[in-house]
Amino acid sequence: MKFNDKLANLINYEAGKPIELVVREFGIAPKDVIKLASNENPFGTSPRVIEAIKNCAQNMYLYPDDSYYELKEALSAKFNVNTKNIIIGSGSDQVIEFAVHAKANSKNAVLMAGVTFAMYEIYAKHTGAKIYRTQAKGHNLEDFLKVYNDKKDEISMIFLCLPNNPLGECLNRDDVYEFLEQIDKDVMIVIDGAYNEFARFKDKNKEICPKDLITKFKNTIFLGTFSKAYGLGGMRVGYGIADESIINELGKLRAPFNITTLSLKAAIEALKDQEFVDKTVEANFQEMKKYEKFAKEHNIEFIDSYTNFITYNFERENASEIAKNLLKKGIILRDLKSYGMNSIRITIGLPEQNDRVLDELRKAIK
Amino acid sequence: MKFNDKLANLINYEAGKPIELVVREFGIAPKDVIKLASNENPFGTSPRVIEAIKNCAQNMYLYPDDSYYELKEALSAKFNVNTKNIIIGSGSDQVIEFAVHAKANSKNAVLMAGVTFAMYEIYAKHTGAKIYRTQAKGHNLEDFLKVYNDKKDEISMIFLCLPNNPLGECLNRDDVYEFLEQIDKDVMIVIDGAYNEFARFKDKNKEICPKDLITKFKNTIFLGTFSKAYGLGGMRVGYGIADESIINELGKLRAPFNITTLSLKAAIEALKDQEFVDKTVEANFQEMKKYEKFAKEHNIEFIDSYTNFITYNFERENASEIAKNLLKKGIILRDLKSYGMNSIRITIGLPEQNDRVLDELRKAIK
Repeated sequence: MKFNDKLANLINYEAGKPIELVVREFGIAPKDVIKLASNENPFGTSPRVIEAIKNCAQNMYLYPDDSYYELKEALSAKFNVNTKNIIIGSGSDQVIEFAVHAKANSKNAVLMAGVTFAMYEIYAKHTGAKIYRTQAKGHNLEDFLKVYNDKKDEISMIFLCLPNNPLGECLNRDDVYEFLEQIDKDVMIVIDGAYNEFARFKDKNKEICPKDLITKFKNTIFLGTFSKAYGLGGMRVGYGIADESIINELGKLRAPFNITTLSLKAAIEALKDQEFVDKTVEANFQEMKKYEKFAKEHNIEFIDSYTNFITYNFERENASEIAKNLLKKGIILRDLKSYGMNSIRITIGLPEQNDRVLDELRKAIK
Repeated sequence: MKFNDKLANLINYEAGKPIELVVREFGIAPKDVIKLASNENPFGTSPRVIEAIKNCAQNMYLYPDDSYYELKEALSAKFNVNTKNIIIGSGSDQVIEFAVHAKANSKNAVLMAGVTFAMYEIYAKHTGAKIYRTQAKGHNLEDFLKVYNDKKDEISMIFLCLPNNPLGECLNRDDVYEFLEQIDKDVMIVIDGAYNEFARFKDKNKEICPKDLITKFKNTIFLGTFSKAYGLGGMRVGYGIADESIINELGKLRAPFNITTLSLKAAIEALKDQEFVDKTVEANFQEMKKYEKFAKEHNIEFIDSYTNFITYNFERENASEIAKNLLKKGIILRDLKSYGMNSIRITIGLPEQNDRVLDELRKAIK
């Protein structure tokens, strides 16, 4: 059977390996597996949310309220925006998908950092759009401007991942605003704030306030997620905040019931437990110090991180080999080979997990 | 901001109204609302599944095993197909989306019944494909062949909904097979079996065996769902079964983690409780008799249904008015106005729900 041409060029996202796979392949007991490969919250989920889900498990047969009324009301209150400025996605990934399908096509192009979240490119390829990347791996706004000015006729979308996954660096808000001033108002700018809760804790200059952003720049969309600081990675809930004119168009691409009944409940409850998020973020940067110290002691280059992970760039050692060796011991880290890097991304875990990981890393790089 | 042209033509799916909306709009207590608008399982979810979800709620922070290994193994055993013949979607809806994006485009067309599941058209419009419908509302294979032969150069996909939502009728398997023999092997045929568990119980001639189907016709994809007989509408899990060559292409369009961690668990557990499904299906047709009897008594035309709903076609009365009147009393039925019909689709509920609905309907049509 013949399929649409664009499929020939599609690549699949390489997800972090699941615990189940390590159990199956290496016969390691689930309790002995440490998974620090997918930037999940090591504290799990707020007990309040777990309780709420147990109490509403009997509603699994019911489709969710597809207007997402209660969740939008809660997000609207949190961010001081109108509910009409909000769209809900199955993870912020899906909002990226909506945005790309609304704006990109086989006759235009999208621009992103040299190394950034893989789904931008994957979704863009679904539309046949051309992909431009900055020469710099991380976000360098001069580089962005250079490519943008060179390819102004083609570029319809720009992605800024603040902070950037899988590298961890983050631009300052003021620099971003200055950059946005120089971009044509018909270009859609996606500001991916999936890890912004972490960045803003470490440095207030990194904080992006969605209301301020979309008021100043009507061509931007801010993305947030419940997958990271809120501890709901497995429940697939994210959101986009933008001018109503953008939300309306993206809404046309949203299929009904795009999040589950329990996901909706979980997100609503998670917003009520800010303490859990605060604790998560604070502990994250406390524990990150261990990884920074280790890297310095062993002359491993690392990227100053504004997220819940740290990326080690190796010179002598082969990162893939290290990741493979640790995998056999039940430690799942993220080899960044598919991003063209000799690097490993490590999610900051619980204290005892980090200690064991660093212990095994020490042995592996000897 | 300018958006892609195709967005101008997009329509949104009109979902059944949620209980929450009736509570908000009419101030009716949730326990007094009867929702028979979305073909959810009135028996809820298997107690075994509810228990499993309560026990795994603490895993919400973890992304699912994106290979869906355990679920595919279970489906593979159930249908006696290879796991490579299976793709998992966020509801079978999403598998429809994958199929359409793999095959349809602005230069070809899709063919479907006059009145059938709305998402076929909605997804097809995302690709810019042309839509052809048979003149007959329900599935009439002569009509299908007529349009197909007329538009052979354009048609790249055909949808057969067996049984058909929102009408309820169902073709015989042998007739479907005979039809499939006459279709070019490069045309993708989607056999939507979302309600096939119901149809096969009522009449063995309606049963589609996916293995048999895809072995005989390598251009077909069979769709199944956990939303109906399995009582997991809110959890968004469906599947497609097809030749590996089709599954591979559709897989390129699947984003990672397209179902949630709890949805995955729920589907795996639901497959272990066949008794729940059997009980659901049997009770469904028992209760449906009440609706058939009522219709006959009141001279309402109804469609002989092979599903978990029944569709009443009104002549004298205005179906939308009736639906609105019942809504104010806390009874949510599905007005089929958006399908161009003066009809109401009623999900078969629990005995006491059906009695109340019929009681109110009796008053409404007087």
